[in-house]
Amino acid sequence: MSKFWSPFVKDLVPYVPGEQPKLAKLVKLNTNENPYGPSPKAIAAMQAEVNDNLRLYPDPNSDRLKQAVADYYGVQTNQVFVGNGSDEVLAHAFHGLFQHGQPLLFPDISYSFYPVYCGLYGIDFVQVPLDKQFRISVEDYVRPNGGIIFPNPNAPTGCVLALDAIERLLKANPDSVVLVDEAYIDFGGETAISLVDQYPNLLVTQTLSKSRSLAGLRVGLAVGHPDLIEALERIKNSFNSYPLDRIAIAGAAAAFEDRTYFEQTCQKVIDSREAVVTGLQKLGFEVLPSAANFVFARHPDKDAATLAAGLREQGVIVRHFKQQRIAQFLRLTIGTPEQNQALLDALQGL
Amino acid sequence: MSKFWSPFVKDLVPYVPGEQPKLAKLVKLNTNENPYGPSPKAIAAMQAEVNDNLRLYPDPNSDRLKQAVADYYGVQTNQVFVGNGSDEVLAHAFHGLFQHGQPLLFPDISYSFYPVYCGLYGIDFVQVPLDKQFRISVEDYVRPNGGIIFPNPNAPTGCVLALDAIERLLKANPDSVVLVDEAYIDFGGETAISLVDQYPNLLVTQTLSKSRSLAGLRVGLAVGHPDLIEALERIKNSFNSYPLDRIAIAGAAAAFEDRTYFEQTCQKVIDSREAVVTGLQKLGFEVLPSAANFVFARHPDKDAATLAAGLREQGVIVRHFKQQRIAQFLRLTIGTPEQNQALLDALQGL
Repeated sequence: MSKFWSPFVKDLVPYVPGEQPKLAKLVKLNTNENPYGPSPKAIAAMQAEVNDNLRLYPDPNSDRLKQAVADYYGVQTNQVFVGNGSDEVLAHAFHGLFQHGQPLLFPDISYSFYPVYCGLYGIDFVQVPLDKQFRISVEDYVRPNGGIIFPNPNAPTGCVLALDAIERLLKANPDSVVLVDEAYIDFGGETAISLVDQYPNLLVTQTLSKSRSLAGLRVGLAVGHPDLIEALERIKNSFNSYPLDRIAIAGAAAAFEDRTYFEQTCQKVIDSREAVVTGLQKLGFEVLPSAANFVFARHPDKDAATLAAGLREQGVIVRHFKQQRIAQFLRLTIGTPEQNQALLDALQGL
Repeated sequence: MSKFWSPFVKDLVPYVPGEQPKLAKLVKLNTNENPYGPSPKAIAAMQAEVNDNLRLYPDPNSDRLKQAVADYYGVQTNQVFVGNGSDEVLAHAFHGLFQHGQPLLFPDISYSFYPVYCGLYGIDFVQVPLDKQFRISVEDYVRPNGGIIFPNPNAPTGCVLALDAIERLLKANPDSVVLVDEAYIDFGGETAISLVDQYPNLLVTQTLSKSRSLAGLRVGLAVGHPDLIEALERIKNSFNSYPLDRIAIAGAAAAFEDRTYFEQTCQKVIDSREAVVTGLQKLGFEVLPSAANFVFARHPDKDAATLAAGLREQGVIVRHFKQQRIAQFLRLTIGTPEQNQALLDALQGL
């Protein structure tokens, strides 16, 4: 603590991202990256931007990318916001849409960045317990609130909430923004973007870090009613005029334009997930139903932290959260078939 | 205004960046970009990052870039913060270091993003008038304050404050953070980074958008006491774990490592600036002394807005601010010798 800090800084409890080890040769199944590279068309689009034009500012509005997203989802560009990773998009949404005096509601087991944003922007929150099967129960969110947010599929559980349940949630909370954080939606869920024309209180965020294999490029987006998008634009334009660089705009737009590659790689990950689930079950693990590119699993007899440490010794990195209710679970990213086999082989010996 | 907005959003007055026209063939002298491309070594480093590894998150701490900056300036890496453009770095600094109940002080004629940040974070401010020669007078900043910020050289005037004046300012305000925003320092000023070991209240920000020709890549930095850097890191890690993508980290580090190219291009811009000043003076313009990659000039008889419009008709874009005291000035970015000649030729006919 320094006398120079704004007072709130000392109480911040920053988010701790999954480890990004600098060693190669590890089987890295800890941060839900895609085992397959980005679309070759995205690679080509980025290469074409690495030239002397980098001396010039990018388009502050990222129009090309907004158009690609709008075309992909059949919405208008004024329903699309883009930012430097979905974490930045979420930060602006917390700042611009959730300061209403009432507590923000989100699941007790969820993306651990949410309470961090609340700390950053002085937002009160209530963590609503998931049910015993680790599912969101819509009825638990019918209470006074200043907004609702949850990942769908949820993280780190992988469980998906169906669109009809989301509609019930939206109808029960017409005066609150309901933010559906769809970081993992493309691996088996159904996007709520189909509902944005109907519900002015719905905001959907997505990232290009998972299903579009561009974690290293930092691009995220939000889709919703133009009024909600305007709040995000006002904050973005009061924070950083140019959050996306020239290479990122081009690469992200090309990734959205290459539907074939996207669908193929998503399907490969889904197929691998089913194989991993089967393998884990054979080893005696309980695995929550996953619609994501990871599974959340626990063994009835083996301690999760010990398993994680044992995997690490064999060069396999997974994520373990020291948190009530889930301390005996491991979150395992779906890798290539070879990586997945290495994980299962390593687990077998532990 | 929407009922869904956090209340402060309706009062935001976002920053308006200089136009980024999508037409080619314009002589674009409106946003202080470098007329020369980035270092070929930076281009090569970026090209090497455009590959399948983009599926992986970048290093959240950008260690490679921090090391390059630390090596360049002879400081420690814990004295260096990096972000997604210096605008993001400034935003975090306003948030983390300037909320102290007392007004922030900055010049009345200065970077027009400063009052926008104050609006975003609820910071009271006082704009301290520049003197009649548009210079900062240190004595005017000896008054109760919650922080001090100014660009050096100042924008849009181009006037530089000498290091001994900055030291007087630091000594007169030992309990306030003094932020020296050095976006344009490499074109003729002397960086205050040499003072950071001596003054724990000094924070210096820089950008790679100007002297390092990487406006399109979005990288900025801050150097100061580790306690000040820690405040920025705490906010960054509560906002976005990975503000810099893999390509940006590599390109920015390589740009810092290529000192020769950097020094050569800066010198070319400085030489061109002197030629532009001479040319403008021949046309009857008064030109403020500039240590930046732009000049701020007014004609005793010709209206600035009319001149800007006339230049635009001839395909030359410059920046004009509709603001008291400077409404008769034009801010002219230094371009290539050919661009500068085109500017002077166009002005001659107006």
